[in-house]
Amino acid sequence: MCLIMEAADDHVVDGGVLAAPSNFSMVEDGIYRSGFPKPENFGFLTTLSLRSIIYLCPEPYPEENLKFLEANNIKLFQFGIEGKTDPPTPMPEDTVLDALRVLVDVRNHPILIHCKAGKHRTGCLVGCLRKVQSWCLSSVLEEYQKNAGVKWRQRDLNFIEAFDTASLRQCLLSIMYRYHGYGFKRKRLVHEEENVQTLKPQAAKV
Amino acid sequence: MCLIMEAADDHVVDGGVLAAPSNFSMVEDGIYRSGFPKPENFGFLTTLSLRSIIYLCPEPYPEENLKFLEANNIKLFQFGIEGKTDPPTPMPEDTVLDALRVLVDVRNHPILIHCKAGKHRTGCLVGCLRKVQSWCLSSVLEEYQKNAGVKWRQRDLNFIEAFDTASLRQCLLSIMYRYHGYGFKRKRLVHEEENVQTLKPQAAKV
Repeated sequence: MCLIMEAADDHVVDGGVLAAPSNFSMVEDGIYRSGFPKPENFGFLTTLSLRSIIYLCPEPYPEENLKFLEANNIKLFQFGIEGKTDPPTPMPEDTVLDALRVLVDVRNHPILIHCKAGKHRTGCLVGCLRKVQSWCLSSVLEEYQKNAGVKWRQRDLNFIEAFDTASLRQCLLSIMYRYHGYGFKRKRLVHEEENVQTLKPQAAKV
Repeated sequence: MCLIMEAADDHVVDGGVLAAPSNFSMVEDGIYRSGFPKPENFGFLTTLSLRSIIYLCPEPYPEENLKFLEANNIKLFQFGIEGKTDPPTPMPEDTVLDALRVLVDVRNHPILIHCKAGKHRTGCLVGCLRKVQSWCLSSVLEEYQKNAGVKWRQRDLNFIEAFDTASLRQCLLSIMYRYHGYGFKRKRLVHEEENVQTLKPQAAKV
């Protein structure tokens, strides 16, 4: 008799094992992060039942990865953020905000965020998400550093600290309105009554 | 207007933030890991809606942590594994197996695993879980090392590599039988037909 967890179900060949992409972690229910997935990681990725990928590099997506996405009906959201360090390119706040909008939209989940190493660009995006989730800054930075290892960059920490999450509010609000009352299953977004008098908090759960 | 994700809902005081326990990470849907939670982390932990905690140290659980558990109806599973390094205590396979049995039982989820630093004892337990999930050894060890940082120990890697997951099969089988047909929601365990003729794979999903 052999029992295994569902994640390892159909995608393990006889005696086979699952190779996670480098620097893989689960961020939240339905949100994952990693370094660049290689073909040997496709079996593992299939177990995540991904609906989307957020790719944070400007370079074109490799042909074999595109084929994998097509075969598994995975949507690609590319946000071309330069990874050059000489001279260092500042993290573009608007682009990170655009990526964050895609990330918090549960219609895109399960979703994988990746760049090249899964450390800096991915780390900044996840750090901004944590701020939206009201994580305190030291927890946010600890998570960034754990995933960046010895390659952590002070300017990434500065970017995360300075990032203003207020600009995301309108986006979250629009998602909520779109799903309000339509029986959407995932209760990930809540509404705190402040200026809106027409919706009560419990009614605003999507 | 203010919109925040559900995890940050009721437990944020005005203008407040959530402090995750040190070395906190999500392992799987419903499984978390961290270092020892302090009272300042209780607000954060409440957002996880924990049903159980696996505590891997022999020292008694602090009174204030016990009160927090009682107030939030969280069950404590303590497995006293020595953390001494001089002389180093070998990781006890039977105890890790007992903890793993609790960990894979979805009736205990959401569950938090912690020891003191969330690096060695917790890392070994999570490593064994990954083997049950058919992760390849290099992925398992990369995750262990990412969470242990510079404190990683070769003997932990050896322990994880040598750990025999076959002994967990009977436990998983018993959980499956207990829930088979009872409409249990979480489809985390699957059954691969091998010697059991009375159950078909699809019928065996719990």
